[in-house]
Amino acid sequence: MKRVLVLNGPNLNMLGMREPGVYGTVSLPVIIQNLEALAAQLDIELECFQSNHEGGLIDKIHEAYGTKDGIVINPGAFTHYSYAIRDALATVQLPTVEVHLSNIHKREEFRHHSVTAPVVIGQICGFGAASYELGLRALLPHL
Amino acid sequence: MKRVLVLNGPNLNMLGMREPGVYGTVSLPVIIQNLEALAAQLDIELECFQSNHEGGLIDKIHEAYGTKDGIVINPGAFTHYSYAIRDALATVQLPTVEVHLSNIHKREEFRHHSVTAPVVIGQICGFGAASYELGLRALLPHL
Amino acid sequence: MKRVLVLNGPNLNMLGMREPGVYGTVSLPVIIQNLEALAAQLDIELECFQSNHEGGLIDKIHEAYGTKDGIVINPGAFTHYSYAIRDALATVQLPTVEVHLSNIHKREEFRHHSVTAPVVIGQICGFGAASYELGLRALLPHL
Amino acid sequence: MKRVLVLNGPNLNMLGMREPGVYGTVSLPVIIQNLEALAAQLDIELECFQSNHEGGLIDKIHEAYGTKDGIVINPGAFTHYSYAIRDALATVQLPTVEVHLSNIHKREEFRHHSVTAPVVIGQICGFGAASYELGLRALLPHL
Amino acid sequence: MKRVLVLNGPNLNMLGMREPGVYGTVSLPVIIQNLEALAAQLDIELECFQSNHEGGLIDKIHEAYGTKDGIVINPGAFTHYSYAIRDALATVQLPTVEVHLSNIHKREEFRHHSVTAPVVIGQICGFGAASYELGLRALLPHL
Amino acid sequence: MKRVLVLNGPNLNMLGMREPGVYGTVSLPVIIQNLEALAAQLDIELECFQSNHEGGLIDKIHEAYGTKDGIVINPGAFTHYSYAIRDALATVQLPTVEVHLSNIHKREEFRHHSVTAPVVIGQICGFGAASYELGLRALLPHL
Amino acid sequence: MKRVLVLNGPNLNMLGMREPGVYGTVSLPVIIQNLEALAAQLDIELECFQSNHEGGLIDKIHEAYGTKDGIVINPGAFTHYSYAIRDALATVQLPTVEVHLSNIHKREEFRHHSVTAPVVIGQICGFGAASYELGLRALLPHL
Amino acid sequence: MKRVLVLNGPNLNMLGMREPGVYGTVSLPVIIQNLEALAAQLDIELECFQSNHEGGLIDKIHEAYGTKDGIVINPGAFTHYSYAIRDALATVQLPTVEVHLSNIHKREEFRHHSVTAPVVIGQICGFGAASYELGLRALLPHL
Amino acid sequence: MKRVLVLNGPNLNMLGMREPGVYGTVSLPVIIQNLEALAAQLDIELECFQSNHEGGLIDKIHEAYGTKDGIVINPGAFTHYSYAIRDALATVQLPTVEVHLSNIHKREEFRHHSVTAPVVIGQICGFGAASYELGLRALLPHL
Amino acid sequence: MKRVLVLNGPNLNMLGMREPGVYGTVSLPVIIQNLEALAAQLDIELECFQSNHEGGLIDKIHEAYGTKDGIVINPGAFTHYSYAIRDALATVQLPTVEVHLSNIHKREEFRHHSVTAPVVIGQICGFGAASYELGLRALLPHL
Amino acid sequence: MKRVLVLNGPNLNMLGMREPGVYGTVSLPVIIQNLEALAAQLDIELECFQSNHEGGLIDKIHEAYGTKDGIVINPGAFTHYSYAIRDALATVQLPTVEVHLSNIHKREEFRHHSVTAPVVIGQICGFGAASYELGLRALLPHL
Amino acid sequence: MKRVLVLNGPNLNMLGMREPGVYGTVSLPVIIQNLEALAAQLDIELECFQSNHEGGLIDKIHEAYGTKDGIVINPGAFTHYSYAIRDALATVQLPTVEVHLSNIHKREEFRHHSVTAPVVIGQICGFGAASYELGLRALLPHL
Repeated sequence: MKRVLVLNGPNLNMLGMREPGVYGTVSLPVIIQNLEALAAQLDIELECFQSNHEGGLIDKIHEAYGTKDGIVINPGAFTHYSYAIRDALATVQLPTVEVHLSNIHKREEFRHHSVTAPVVIGQICGFGAASYELGLRALLPHL
Repeated sequence: MKRVLVLNGPNLNMLGMREPGVYGTVSLPVIIQNLEALAAQLDIELECFQSNHEGGLIDKIHEAYGTKDGIVINPGAFTHYSYAIRDALATVQLPTVEVHLSNIHKREEFRHHSVTAPVVIGQICGFGAASYELGLRALLPHL
Repeated sequence: MKRVLVLNGPNLNMLGMREPGVYGTVSLPVIIQNLEALAAQLDIELECFQSNHEGGLIDKIHEAYGTKDGIVINPGAFTHYSYAIRDALATVQLPTVEVHLSNIHKREEFRHHSVTAPVVIGQICGFGAASYELGLRALLPHL
Repeated sequence: MKRVLVLNGPNLNMLGMREPGVYGTVSLPVIIQNLEALAAQLDIELECFQSNHEGGLIDKIHEAYGTKDGIVINPGAFTHYSYAIRDALATVQLPTVEVHLSNIHKREEFRHHSVTAPVVIGQICGFGAASYELGLRALLPHL
Repeated sequence: MKRVLVLNGPNLNMLGMREPGVYGTVSLPVIIQNLEALAAQLDIELECFQSNHEGGLIDKIHEAYGTKDGIVINPGAFTHYSYAIRDALATVQLPTVEVHLSNIHKREEFRHHSVTAPVVIGQICGFGAASYELGLRALLPHL
Repeated sequence: MKRVLVLNGPNLNMLGMREPGVYGTVSLPVIIQNLEALAAQLDIELECFQSNHEGGLIDKIHEAYGTKDGIVINPGAFTHYSYAIRDALATVQLPTVEVHLSNIHKREEFRHHSVTAPVVIGQICGFGAASYELGLRALLPHL
Repeated sequence: MKRVLVLNGPNLNMLGMREPGVYGTVSLPVIIQNLEALAAQLDIELECFQSNHEGGLIDKIHEAYGTKDGIVINPGAFTHYSYAIRDALATVQLPTVEVHLSNIHKREEFRHHSVTAPVVIGQICGFGAASYELGLRALLPHL
Repeated sequence: MKRVLVLNGPNLNMLGMREPGVYGTVSLPVIIQNLEALAAQLDIELECFQSNHEGGLIDKIHEAYGTKDGIVINPGAFTHYSYAIRDALATVQLPTVEVHLSNIHKREEFRHHSVTAPVVIGQICGFGAASYELGLRALLPHL
Repeated sequence: MKRVLVLNGPNLNMLGMREPGVYGTVSLPVIIQNLEALAAQLDIELECFQSNHEGGLIDKIHEAYGTKDGIVINPGAFTHYSYAIRDALATVQLPTVEVHLSNIHKREEFRHHSVTAPVVIGQICGFGAASYELGLRALLPHL
Repeated sequence: MKRVLVLNGPNLNMLGMREPGVYGTVSLPVIIQNLEALAAQLDIELECFQSNHEGGLIDKIHEAYGTKDGIVINPGAFTHYSYAIRDALATVQLPTVEVHLSNIHKREEFRHHSVTAPVVIGQICGFGAASYELGLRALLPHL
Repeated sequence: MKRVLVLNGPNLNMLGMREPGVYGTVSLPVIIQNLEALAAQLDIELECFQSNHEGGLIDKIHEAYGTKDGIVINPGAFTHYSYAIRDALATVQLPTVEVHLSNIHKREEFRHHSVTAPVVIGQICGFGAASYELGLRALLPHL
Repeated sequence: MKRVLVLNGPNLNMLGMREPGVYGTVSLPVIIQNLEALAAQLDIELECFQSNHEGGLIDKIHEAYGTKDGIVINPGAFTHYSYAIRDALATVQLPTVEVHLSNIHKREEFRHHSVTAPVVIGQICGFGAASYELGLRALLPHL
């Protein structure tokens, strides 16, 4: 059985509370629950972790080194500027898939600067909660 | 049964012939064949079309208006500059998923300019031939 | 009797079908029909041509060399990047007026880059179908 | 009978005196005289005003609010930087057409920055004195 | 009793007439009237001046030299480009507070360039008519 | 009675210890004490929180959702780059006023990039400790 | 006897009042008086004009057309942005020398943008009041 | 005997017709004829192809894969933006020399952006029709 | 005896585990051990602290105020964007030396932006673990 | 008697030989001869030196330290990039005037970058050989 | 018999000693020897000169004026920044061909800035030592 | 015994004469003398060379090839633009350490452009004369 770490960055704990027009009405626990169901089908053991602290996410990525087989990460706003998370992912070198709920290419500030995407296998964005499920499927052959 | 148009842009007909280090060794017909299998499972009817001609792709997108339920497109190098393809996608307003074989965020010239991504539902990149299959799955709930 | 070529670039064949909020509800055939009526008044013989193919538009511009007295062109999305159409217009050196249905100065991506405008007599934009009629009138004294 | 304000910005009072190679040999009074003739045909009452003072043009635009039905403006050099004139036009919200004698897209400094064009209906440039007449015709259906 | 000059730049005389969604429905005379009431409380004598003329505002700033104890200025669109007003404020060196009705940081063109802000004590923006009252209070300890 | 959260970002706990030339000699506890006095007058209940941890500030903003009526925030250096704090403010959608001790428009690095300002009601900067008091007054009508 | 117009832009009427560290302690009347003495030696008749109004300077430049033989101009802050003054100088085509009291190349904002310098014979900057006298001498052989 | 494909991009079919000041008076057939003579000397078999269609050039490049030993290409205006032609050349990996009639380094728009040059062996520009002959000689040792 | 704080930023705890080609095979504890030996020779007392949390590093810098005589810092990825750490260093004003294991001038993203370097005494980079020892020696005369 | 060093940078030894349209027909020896005459009048002793070698000019500037009272320099093309000459001028701190034959503000490449101007008293450009004489006069009061 | 100056810039004397992967294994003397053989065939007399000194190259270019019929130059690293060499070439106006051993369009720093190419007839790059021979052939018809 | 070349670029011969506030009061001979003492301890033989001539420094670097074991270089102002020195260092491939007296990251013009740093082992800046001694120590293990 493969072990996958699912990381969620800042403000994703607030999902479904506000701005449903942008991010849908589904909360993070519901997303995780559905993802667990899919993981069970794919014979994957998930550990899910959300933090608003950049350092907390980095610590968790380090911890995954030697204990997990892959990572699905939604870095949230850290996608813009966290070279530290990028370096953490580059350091542990676990197969990683980056996911986003919304199509980040529609937002001006994302177009100029995505600091984490260059160190992951690939990126999936724009499909709401389904981005996570697609991300897990995409990760599977790399585990 | 839903009908989906699968569009491939310039040079994708040469897949598997050169630079396997970058794009894998799978040829376009093999990718399409696997995608057909998945489509059959998902009860989707595919039409696949590849062209090195920007105008040919635009004509095909127009043709899809009223005859298809969605589009999976790998615009290839046109991703960089074809405002005409972007406008075509925006005009027919069919649900569209953009896919790329490689992680385009690792390539310098893509980072500054992705002209088609802002008009699609979402983008999937970096998973080789699997990007197409993930794209079709991602499109399904939008058909 | 003067002969004028009226060229329409990519996606203009779809006019009136979608996004009437942006481009109005008039289709290209209706625009052409009204333009023919004005041309008759002004004693001008029109040839109208639309293509989604950059090369097709260039071939047509070359063909106009020696057979037409002037050009009215709506390059559509090619306005952004077709140095090849610009060179074609510069090569045949026929008096040319560039027209646009919408006010392109309101769209961010046009502001930085208009590759065709520097080689034409003048540009008319923002008046919907009337842009063509104003373009024909503007061209008249230069034929 | 519709009332239209025709505004001319800095240095346009010197038209026809210098640099006929660039702007033609026609003086502003002659342009106005011809425009009056066309206005009479179109059943439009013109008021023409030229000023080298940005503030004078803004005062006149405010004055037009409630007393005119539309504006034809050649902002001259203010096109480059007068956010104040732009705001004045945006404030009174009268239908406005921007005209220029020369093809401003041929001049380097205009390409990067046109501050007034985004708030008008459309723009006509490059046709010398005829730009004004085309501008009046273009404005007519919006009065 | 302290004397304060309240300066308003271009188009602010039109406040409350148009675009209430952006600037509120209050007219400039009403704003001034409320400000006078607060000034009376704070034992400040106000002189209020609005002009659409950059030179008129500069003359007034010069005039304040030696006759006023401080300035509250809403430079309107001149905020973008009037190095001349900035120099005028820098020359007379009276304590000055810059105010704006709307949150200028939400408007793209303001972000790149605020030519007057670097020469004032501080800036208050986004609170509608209340920006002026806050500005007067902020100025008080510097008089 | 209205409840307002007063947030202070990194290094503001060191206020009054160093660089009094730039930030004045007042310490943060003194600023808070004065602010409490004003809050009492305005019938507002304050909760004040300072952290050098971006994640700590985000957690606090989330906590304010449903328990506070508004926020006064001095993001300190996070103003430059914390898209995560900006998203937190945008998510809870409480009325928020941004304050700064110094006039940030005088500092080169602030001019190009203020990531939090676009999501708040307004910004007040340059008045030292008084910026907080003005901020609380500015917030009052929005509670 | 040659006639020369000496133009001074915004805030130069305040010379010698403030910031003597930057501009010296000499007032504009004293500069003009010394310049008159030199002009008398060189058999030149001066007309000196200062205005804080861009439009006033443009009107004066137009007036010089046919009545003056040359211009010495210190555009002050208009050097940064007045395309209208630049066009006025280009229109009347009188030999013109641009002068500045301070070395404008030491000031960051001048380095990127000098809109008037490209249309004059030459520029002299950095010599305080002596810049005017050098300017008059430099103009002499071009009259 | 080596086989070389000679590709000419848009508008090169019009050579010698217009703008002889820029490109000389020689037509494309004459250039080809001379090149054939040189090819015969060098024991090279030429196939020459011109198209105004980007897609047509790409198809031809693909066709050269396995049937030609090298390519001489003058991409014309596509040099500026055709990432698709660049990818085609990179895909077939035939030794390729890029030639231009004029010295493209004298033209502003070329300096910032040459998308095809990075994937060829080398570039020869500025020698008119002789650029082709030099290109063929340069290619010879790489066949 | 002088007291020096040695700070290490994000991911430096993972040193020697991965990417030895870039950072060498030495782990952080080994680096620290060697540095302790040198410190003993130089009669310096070290306190070493590593954190992946920006706020943790800032807290530690504040703590050093009044308790340490100098700082050696390797900010890791925070070098790119942590204005908060820069402000912390500027606030406590202890003599500080910045060190990096690799030559950061070889990495594209560092060239444009080093936010901490301007507030330290000097920077040493490129010498692997020896960078720390050189940093301690460099700091010595400033303690 | 004051001693002034007159420095001429690269290619100025070729003056009057080519491109008289740009630089006039006067050779450098003739310019120097006229300058000697003026220097005699002003009781100044000149030493004139031309070199195409950046290092030669720097050596000469160093030599002037303690032996000359001022410098007139035409750095020629070194104006664009010689930070070394700029540093040499800054090091010896002799009063220096920079002169240019042509109006450098008309040349595109000069507008973005003048590395020497910020360290001199002032700059005089555009008056041909007279620029040197004006430069000497401008220098006089600073000797 | 025509006389041609062959100029080589900095570091080209070290050719063949290091980095054969980039520049081939041929030394400069061997390149020159082969070029002499070709020159003899073409009835051209060569003078070859290499220098690491910009000034030395400029002196040599000046010397060529009136004594040579043309120049082949490989400016080496001076291609990036020597406006002085560019001006020297522009001054003597001898027909000049620029050559480079490697394809400079593959190197990032060359793409933005080639200061010498705009003043030569044409440029040849990427063919190793053969670039010189092609350069001499290209120059021949211009002698 | 190892042999090290110590290179000093333009204006460093003037050290200690002017601007002691920036560079300290120590002259270059004194720095060298101290460095010789350290070299003796480390069993290194130094050769020290200073030149204001870029070409002289390049010649010296070439000369070091095969005769020295390493280089300590302070390129002075050449750090900004001498691609020729960078190429010289890259060509001889001797272990090289770059040193600067002052912290170059505090100076605006250095931040954007350091052309030599990418080809050396590492860089040490900001420690005055001690930078050289640290540089020698840093070089030692690479000899």
